[in-house]
Amino acid sequence: MKLLSVGTVAFDAIETPFGKTDKILGGAATYIGLAASVLETDVHLVSVVGGDFPDEYLKMMERKNINVEGVEIVKDGKTFFWAGKYHNDLNTRDTLVTELNVLENFDPKIPENTADADILMLGNLHPGVQLAVLERMKKRPKLVVLDTMNFWMNHTWDLLMEVIAKTDVITINDEEARQLSGEYSLVKAAKKIHSLGPQYVIIKKGEHGALLFHEAKVFALPALLLEDVFDPTGAGDTFAGGFVAHLAKHEKFDFQTMKNALVVGSAMASFTVEKFGTEKIKEVTPQMLKERINRLKQLTSFEEVL
Amino acid sequence: MKLLSVGTVAFDAIETPFGKTDKILGGAATYIGLAASVLETDVHLVSVVGGDFPDEYLKMMERKNINVEGVEIVKDGKTFFWAGKYHNDLNTRDTLVTELNVLENFDPKIPENTADADILMLGNLHPGVQLAVLERMKKRPKLVVLDTMNFWMNHTWDLLMEVIAKTDVITINDEEARQLSGEYSLVKAAKKIHSLGPQYVIIKKGEHGALLFHEAKVFALPALLLEDVFDPTGAGDTFAGGFVAHLAKHEKFDFQTMKNALVVGSAMASFTVEKFGTEKIKEVTPQMLKERINRLKQLTSFEEVL
Repeated sequence: MKLLSVGTVAFDAIETPFGKTDKILGGAATYIGLAASVLETDVHLVSVVGGDFPDEYLKMMERKNINVEGVEIVKDGKTFFWAGKYHNDLNTRDTLVTELNVLENFDPKIPENTADADILMLGNLHPGVQLAVLERMKKRPKLVVLDTMNFWMNHTWDLLMEVIAKTDVITINDEEARQLSGEYSLVKAAKKIHSLGPQYVIIKKGEHGALLFHEAKVFALPALLLEDVFDPTGAGDTFAGGFVAHLAKHEKFDFQTMKNALVVGSAMASFTVEKFGTEKIKEVTPQMLKERINRLKQLTSFEEVL
Repeated sequence: MKLLSVGTVAFDAIETPFGKTDKILGGAATYIGLAASVLETDVHLVSVVGGDFPDEYLKMMERKNINVEGVEIVKDGKTFFWAGKYHNDLNTRDTLVTELNVLENFDPKIPENTADADILMLGNLHPGVQLAVLERMKKRPKLVVLDTMNFWMNHTWDLLMEVIAKTDVITINDEEARQLSGEYSLVKAAKKIHSLGPQYVIIKKGEHGALLFHEAKVFALPALLLEDVFDPTGAGDTFAGGFVAHLAKHEKFDFQTMKNALVVGSAMASFTVEKFGTEKIKEVTPQMLKERINRLKQLTSFEEVL
């Protein structure tokens, strides 16, 4: 299946307790594309960058068979830039700089060969842009997956509700699920979010793993235990990328396949956090992924108890 | 196998967002005993109460075949009393009252028929008392399981280190594991705690489940998802009770059995939080437990992915 990922392609500058970087490659669509490429998915990006964006980054993605035809280059503009500093626990961070630049007037253009994608992965972006993409598809994709964050709940509530209503799967973290639903219990939160549109609700809990809700069914997956988390930037996007890539590969959207997709996304994300930015995820092979999935299986399985 | 649980038998007064209680039955040994009785374990309690402790509570435990011969009654003393108020998220609480009463001079007396227990579950108590119990056993139990908390790390560090060194399994929450080890990464924390003595390290993460570490092996179990958590009091003790009861029943202490014991403890704890105090756990049948274990299996299992 053809997969379209819409989202940022950006520069990040990251500071963690273990070091800091200058401007490096980042952005939701970048991580999603790189994760999808590990599964050799037919993945297309729609995004925007400035004239300052190094051609080598696009070339690197092309070599991984990521279709970047839909990444618009605004010659006289500057690429979206985010700088952040993580606290010691790596679970919280301060945003130091947000320069929207070309993202401010991003008017997504979807190439002909991309507009018929079967799966649309809407990476974290202004919900108005996400809606525009949905409207510009040739036909309604078979599956629409949405990632969003608290910022859009605080600033663009109505537009966000509109895009959520058109979504099949939403990925969101636990605090955001609570904010979106007004419920503390995640079971109740998921129910409320179901009622807003999405049939599948994925709640990401970082080091505590992820939950998948569908009708009365739930699946809980712990995160792989890593000796060190080096840089959490992009983990959620990598997760989403692995998740949709698995669905694109298996061409099924039932609960069983969604569960497995969650496992793939989680295994994929465990790579991203081991190095700065995209450094690790761009080196991952299918064999490495398989090994991580086996570790997840070992970590979580138990035999008959009583 | 014979199981001895040493810990408090107490009065609790609890306030949650859903209501409040007067003085009700509480205490670590109480929850451990009640949980163990669900598995029809030969469980003995060693504790102390005052003359104000209702005989009906001891009778109730006796009816469940909990041996309470070792619960000393100090006629002219008052029973340990704790009062606490949970915050809205139920993950944090304020202690309103702590009256040690008879616990202040607790000098544990172990009945003849109890001192040869195979498994010793040291519930959360002053580590000096825990050490005294260990010394008063007829022989070193086959397995010593320790529960403790940050309070003892802050106030009785050296004694705590001494009892930890004599322990086979330690159960501790994530924040306490970090405090005890000085490591933020739970993988590193578990390694350090292993080096203090325990071969098995269990890290409890409340709504996020629990982790079991042994040598290079890890097992991660999410918590059952409950629509509502009503009162978390005693959940950790109930977990410990289910855990040791499973071991006593299966008479094996290998990793596989420990994993299953973690599942039993977790399923057991999911009952306690559904009502105030011991209200729910004392009504649990083996069949109800089995059903919860099946739910945990369903919640966590996935098929071959790639």
